[in-house]
Amino acid sequence: MSEAELIAAIRRQAGAAAGALALGIGDDCAIYRPRGARDELLFTTDLLIEDVHFRRADHPAAAVGHKALARGLSDIAAMGAQAQFCLLSLALPEWADARWQRGFWRGFFALARRAGVTLAGGDLARAEKLACDIVGCGRAPRGLALRRDGARPGEAIFVSGLLGGSALGLETGRGKAWRRHLKPEPRLALGRFVRQRLKATAAMDLSDGLSIDLRRLCLASGVAARLDRPLPAFPGATLDHVLHGGEDYELLFTLPARARPPAFHDGVALTRIGAIEKGPAGQVECFGRPLAALGWDHFRR
Amino acid sequence: MSEAELIAAIRRQAGAAAGALALGIGDDCAIYRPRGARDELLFTTDLLIEDVHFRRADHPAAAVGHKALARGLSDIAAMGAQAQFCLLSLALPEWADARWQRGFWRGFFALARRAGVTLAGGDLARAEKLACDIVGCGRAPRGLALRRDGARPGEAIFVSGLLGGSALGLETGRGKAWRRHLKPEPRLALGRFVRQRLKATAAMDLSDGLSIDLRRLCLASGVAARLDRPLPAFPGATLDHVLHGGEDYELLFTLPARARPPAFHDGVALTRIGAIEKGPAGQVECFGRPLAALGWDHFRR
Repeated sequence: MSEAELIAAIRRQAGAAAGALALGIGDDCAIYRPRGARDELLFTTDLLIEDVHFRRADHPAAAVGHKALARGLSDIAAMGAQAQFCLLSLALPEWADARWQRGFWRGFFALARRAGVTLAGGDLARAEKLACDIVGCGRAPRGLALRRDGARPGEAIFVSGLLGGSALGLETGRGKAWRRHLKPEPRLALGRFVRQRLKATAAMDLSDGLSIDLRRLCLASGVAARLDRPLPAFPGATLDHVLHGGEDYELLFTLPARARPPAFHDGVALTRIGAIEKGPAGQVECFGRPLAALGWDHFRR
Repeated sequence: MSEAELIAAIRRQAGAAAGALALGIGDDCAIYRPRGARDELLFTTDLLIEDVHFRRADHPAAAVGHKALARGLSDIAAMGAQAQFCLLSLALPEWADARWQRGFWRGFFALARRAGVTLAGGDLARAEKLACDIVGCGRAPRGLALRRDGARPGEAIFVSGLLGGSALGLETGRGKAWRRHLKPEPRLALGRFVRQRLKATAAMDLSDGLSIDLRRLCLASGVAARLDRPLPAFPGATLDHVLHGGEDYELLFTLPARARPPAFHDGVALTRIGAIEKGPAGQVECFGRPLAALGWDHFRR
């Protein structure tokens, strides 16, 4: 079973979102609408596990703390929301001594402060391998959070920043690409800009790779996509890194065809890379050829 | 460092709850008050990790799924709230095949349906050991969620149900006590009854053992406590099981001295076990002698 099949099976049992729960399994965040509130609330969780998502030997403690939180905040950014608070469940092995923990929290709270997010709770346990599960809560005006399912044929596809840096860094373990891998920056301000000013029709974050994530957006929207413009590559990244590399945590979004967004927002490039098309849901073409969804899947053999 | 010291250190860095976040680290749930909403929302996370919280060899898959959710719902019950939705992060090892996963979800969704809780999202990953992190969200009228810090001298201390069953079951691995250990019942209806009808002043769930949990309630409220009445013991449980055994998931709560609650609620006994007193915060006496907080602590050596 692939991750997508696994999620589909769970989703069938979970049933449809109803009542105050406006959106359930299948997007970057779930959406809950409290009775009487002006805003809707977004919720996401993300695991970060030793020897699965990171290696202890080459990931400094502060980078692990940073990334644990960044993964959750990136999902909130993708929906154009304001981050509110987070909870963290943390399983600590014996090797994570007081010094390591201080580093972890330094990285975690440095990002939390910058993002204006309070750690509101969580859980602690001992375990053999270090594991973090971040819970992020964001807030957006009722009905306006950006979702994956709003893309329509004719719309333009954009990405933020430069792609493939994280995958390149993971491969080489040095330079700017490695720093990019260690400390991805959740695009919170950009996400709100994309929602409020650019009036994006759909958005998600690039956590597993452009090929698989664009396919997910197309599947959710019931559309196909064409990539037919130069892709913004991180210096040194190969086409493979750019198309299939995970953990860039840049934003992927769609805009009405007539939209003319600025080339940069707060120093981050906004690049048009293609268009949404009618066609089989989830089908992506890259310069005239079918693009296989080779991004990260925990459960693919 | 003990778990309490670890949490205190994290709490200092997290800072005080502010703005819409009404309650942060240190209670069963965090409390968030959405702008304009009539209700407040409660959030909790709980880890359940293979070989830490359960053993694969003797825990059926359905019991693991049940308990993963029950741990989160019990925290919502403890604050007298209505469960709303949950998210689940799940790290699956190779051994957890399709059959095991079906069992897990059967146990999980059976409880979710009974509790009226929708699975709204989460995360999946591969890992060496199975790990679940449940996120629970509950709803209570604004300002009315039961907290640990409301107990005052002179008030009566109550517990629900029979104590020590889970610890006895863990020891013997059979009979009703073992079933109690495998499938604890979150006291959701009772929690709301205790808040709405009994007007409890403080409450929490008994997850780590009466001795340590009562100490936590007293520390939060800045009071001492005296246990001076027969404790409601699970058949076969020793005094050690009753005082220090974890995972009973019964409710511990305080009522005004004059309160005369019914002996049972929906078949669950409500037993007065002592009184809150003036004294050093967190000090608990049991039949005239100091009671050591010997309940479960992941980080005690």
